[in-house]
Amino acid sequence: MGKKLTHFDADGRAIMVDVGGKEITRREAVARGEVHMQSGTLSRILDNRIEKGDVLAVARLAGIMAAKKTSELIPLCHPLMINSVSLEFTPDCERNLVLVEARVRVNGQTGVEMEALTAVTVAALTVYDMCKAIDREMTISAVRLVEKSGGRSGHFRRLEEFGHG
Amino acid sequence: MGKKLTHFDADGRAIMVDVGGKEITRREAVARGEVHMQSGTLSRILDNRIEKGDVLAVARLAGIMAAKKTSELIPLCHPLMINSVSLEFTPDCERNLVLVEARVRVNGQTGVEMEALTAVTVAALTVYDMCKAIDREMTISAVRLVEKSGGRSGHFRRLEEFGHG
Amino acid sequence: MGKKLTHFDADGRAIMVDVGGKEITRREAVARGEVHMQSGTLSRILDNRIEKGDVLAVARLAGIMAAKKTSELIPLCHPLMINSVSLEFTPDCERNLVLVEARVRVNGQTGVEMEALTAVTVAALTVYDMCKAIDREMTISAVRLVEKSGGRSGHFRRLEEFGHG
Amino acid sequence: MGKKLTHFDADGRAIMVDVGGKEITRREAVARGEVHMQSGTLSRILDNRIEKGDVLAVARLAGIMAAKKTSELIPLCHPLMINSVSLEFTPDCERNLVLVEARVRVNGQTGVEMEALTAVTVAALTVYDMCKAIDREMTISAVRLVEKSGGRSGHFRRLEEFGHG
Amino acid sequence: MGKKLTHFDADGRAIMVDVGGKEITRREAVARGEVHMQSGTLSRILDNRIEKGDVLAVARLAGIMAAKKTSELIPLCHPLMINSVSLEFTPDCERNLVLVEARVRVNGQTGVEMEALTAVTVAALTVYDMCKAIDREMTISAVRLVEKSGGRSGHFRRLEEFGHG
Amino acid sequence: MGKKLTHFDADGRAIMVDVGGKEITRREAVARGEVHMQSGTLSRILDNRIEKGDVLAVARLAGIMAAKKTSELIPLCHPLMINSVSLEFTPDCERNLVLVEARVRVNGQTGVEMEALTAVTVAALTVYDMCKAIDREMTISAVRLVEKSGGRSGHFRRLEEFGHG
Repeated sequence: MGKKLTHFDADGRAIMVDVGGKEITRREAVARGEVHMQSGTLSRILDNRIEKGDVLAVARLAGIMAAKKTSELIPLCHPLMINSVSLEFTPDCERNLVLVEARVRVNGQTGVEMEALTAVTVAALTVYDMCKAIDREMTISAVRLVEKSGGRSGHFRRLEEFGHG
Repeated sequence: MGKKLTHFDADGRAIMVDVGGKEITRREAVARGEVHMQSGTLSRILDNRIEKGDVLAVARLAGIMAAKKTSELIPLCHPLMINSVSLEFTPDCERNLVLVEARVRVNGQTGVEMEALTAVTVAALTVYDMCKAIDREMTISAVRLVEKSGGRSGHFRRLEEFGHG
Repeated sequence: MGKKLTHFDADGRAIMVDVGGKEITRREAVARGEVHMQSGTLSRILDNRIEKGDVLAVARLAGIMAAKKTSELIPLCHPLMINSVSLEFTPDCERNLVLVEARVRVNGQTGVEMEALTAVTVAALTVYDMCKAIDREMTISAVRLVEKSGGRSGHFRRLEEFGHG
Repeated sequence: MGKKLTHFDADGRAIMVDVGGKEITRREAVARGEVHMQSGTLSRILDNRIEKGDVLAVARLAGIMAAKKTSELIPLCHPLMINSVSLEFTPDCERNLVLVEARVRVNGQTGVEMEALTAVTVAALTVYDMCKAIDREMTISAVRLVEKSGGRSGHFRRLEEFGHG
Repeated sequence: MGKKLTHFDADGRAIMVDVGGKEITRREAVARGEVHMQSGTLSRILDNRIEKGDVLAVARLAGIMAAKKTSELIPLCHPLMINSVSLEFTPDCERNLVLVEARVRVNGQTGVEMEALTAVTVAALTVYDMCKAIDREMTISAVRLVEKSGGRSGHFRRLEEFGHG
Repeated sequence: MGKKLTHFDADGRAIMVDVGGKEITRREAVARGEVHMQSGTLSRILDNRIEKGDVLAVARLAGIMAAKKTSELIPLCHPLMINSVSLEFTPDCERNLVLVEARVRVNGQTGVEMEALTAVTVAALTVYDMCKAIDREMTISAVRLVEKSGGRSGHFRRLEEFGHG
């Protein structure tokens, strides 16, 4: 825990960190989150996928578009030309939730964990928006970075996600 | 659970719902969320508040500015002229988390729960961004609507938040 | 043809016209356009709708979100709090095209024809983007206002669209 | 027609295609479109150019600025740092239209046809906006890619545009 | 000087002030600023207006479009549906400067001084951008509010602007 | 003064200049500006820094975020992936002003003077916004480029800033 908060200078002023000296490498980040809901809400989402309107397809696009806006939302984030974004939704009918996973890639000087986390949260918020008329108490939970590669700090895997392999 | 998903028409096409016939009333929404972290990260945030850079002040601004962008992020949300946004952060040193609460008000034809939830999540993502160099495993949790007033559907209070009063 | 170009003042300077004295009324605009393509491209779009990815669902969301951005794109357009946007796509297998129709409503002091036209064109561009790998020569055509109601200038219906009733 | 729709994965989920492995090359795209109008409207545009307000100069800026927003408008488009954008307007008094041509260049991993097409359509919409008070029935037509170079797929020229050379 | 800084609450937290209880009135603000430059730069701007490219026409559009973005730029500003924006440029060949004046109107619950000041500064920055290749030392000066009407605080006129009448 | 206005082509049409042939180099720009105010306003800003709300911390973030939006605000500016932005505020109690300085860096094909100037002006406008309730007559002045390095045109230092070294 000896490390500093990098987004402040020695006088405590917020700065956008200079990444100009860092190497351009291929970087990837994966983030996950959960949207908890009533079982009836989850059934409605799954039943409607084909004929009546696909909530998760809308949420996917919202997540992709939000990843591109990350540097507008997070004050000290660098603008990045991301190479790709993809989102996957896995319904879990036992725990009454939808698992959201986003994967973002870039060739750049800084990582894309904020882009992946932003994609997950905006996708989750979109699920909330589209189902709120039937379930106001949905909860977004467990939004976290699960994997990150490329860059100086090496490959990171959140242990609890992969430890059982 | 007889209600429909309002953001699709009878043929399953995504639509922005017509709110033109709804009354203009004073509406308010309150949302909350948590950022879980290592105890050392929380100490760092609290220690640095005065001299070395205030993470939570940056997160507060990020949340306020994000509330104004809600209709750009959530595909079927209506643009709104919000009257006010405020965010409050409460550190909880026992549970090693920061509680984020956002309150949004509008005089309008539709509620501001998405604005409040967006403010909470973007503020939480900003805390993550500013502390990720020292704690990659922070988790954003329990993002939910806790109160909503104004509009046809009446006053909503999430029971578990207020029930112990 | 005695009318002036309203977006310039007497000295030829571009202005955003003052709509402050106009009445707030319920206004609606409907615009249409066509995306012409090879018959194989149209078949691919129609075949894929259910299982392999719905081009038109993506284009619909793009159109809705673009309608909300109209005043950022068209320099002298007023910002508006639109009440609703909907888009409908009608494939025409004889003429090898997809007809795009957008309908936008507002309670406001100025019309929403630009919002409807913007929704149609961005939806059409999105169809192009998603199919360009198999058909570079798609063409966007016949983008026009077909109906407009509310406001001082009365109800407008483009004759050739409705004349055969 | 054996090619796939590249913006969906094998399961039909919309994705932003990964361009990270593609070569950075100098790429250019040229798009064209037409704005059809009454002859009186075209005369008004041409008469006013010098003293009374230049519709086409406003439309040119709108097109340039829109090209920079392409990745915000088209959901699966990559953000790009475009090198240049230029727009040319050619009035055609026999056919009562203005031809709009946009040329966009980039050093990048993906083409700029969407940027060129977006510039053309937003410029055309701006012409509509500025003249709609005198001619509601203007039509935007024949928006198409006419040339594209750089990148793996080689030089493309739309035959009907250049065939008479 | 007994008044408070209204953008902080009692605990010093930045807030977007609640304007929900304020009356909707017709409000107007006028701001001015100056762009100082070499005499040769000013001549170039004036000579080129007709044939070679009108710097000031580009700056005018930039100012109008920026006024619409004010609430995205100024963190605690309210989003507003402005009724009109106009900009006027007055060259002053004795003092080697261009005077920029912006006038913004709204029917709303809060004033438009920030919109007028934003229009002036972005227009001035655009003049700088377009002439910087020939004059890097241009300076933007004397950006100030000169008049404001509507709202509770009454009519304000900056004395030094109007006192000599 | 033989140089041309680079943002127009030979026919006087506004263009975004093609920077594709320019070298990618490390570039930096420094801009400064002043916000003049009543002495009481300056005291209030300085007194409040710690307990009651830090105007300058809000202005700093606004400036950083605005630097990232430069190409959206200035019509013919290129989008850039800036490496870093920092802002410094120096109160001058004798002259009753706050000096604002912004420093921006990029590895790119074009300079970042517009980004630095935009950061300074938006930070200054934010100071105005936050103090306007107690001092409407604040003035933004002396906004200018003071240093620029990297790129073909060599190192520029505004003489009056550095001449006393």
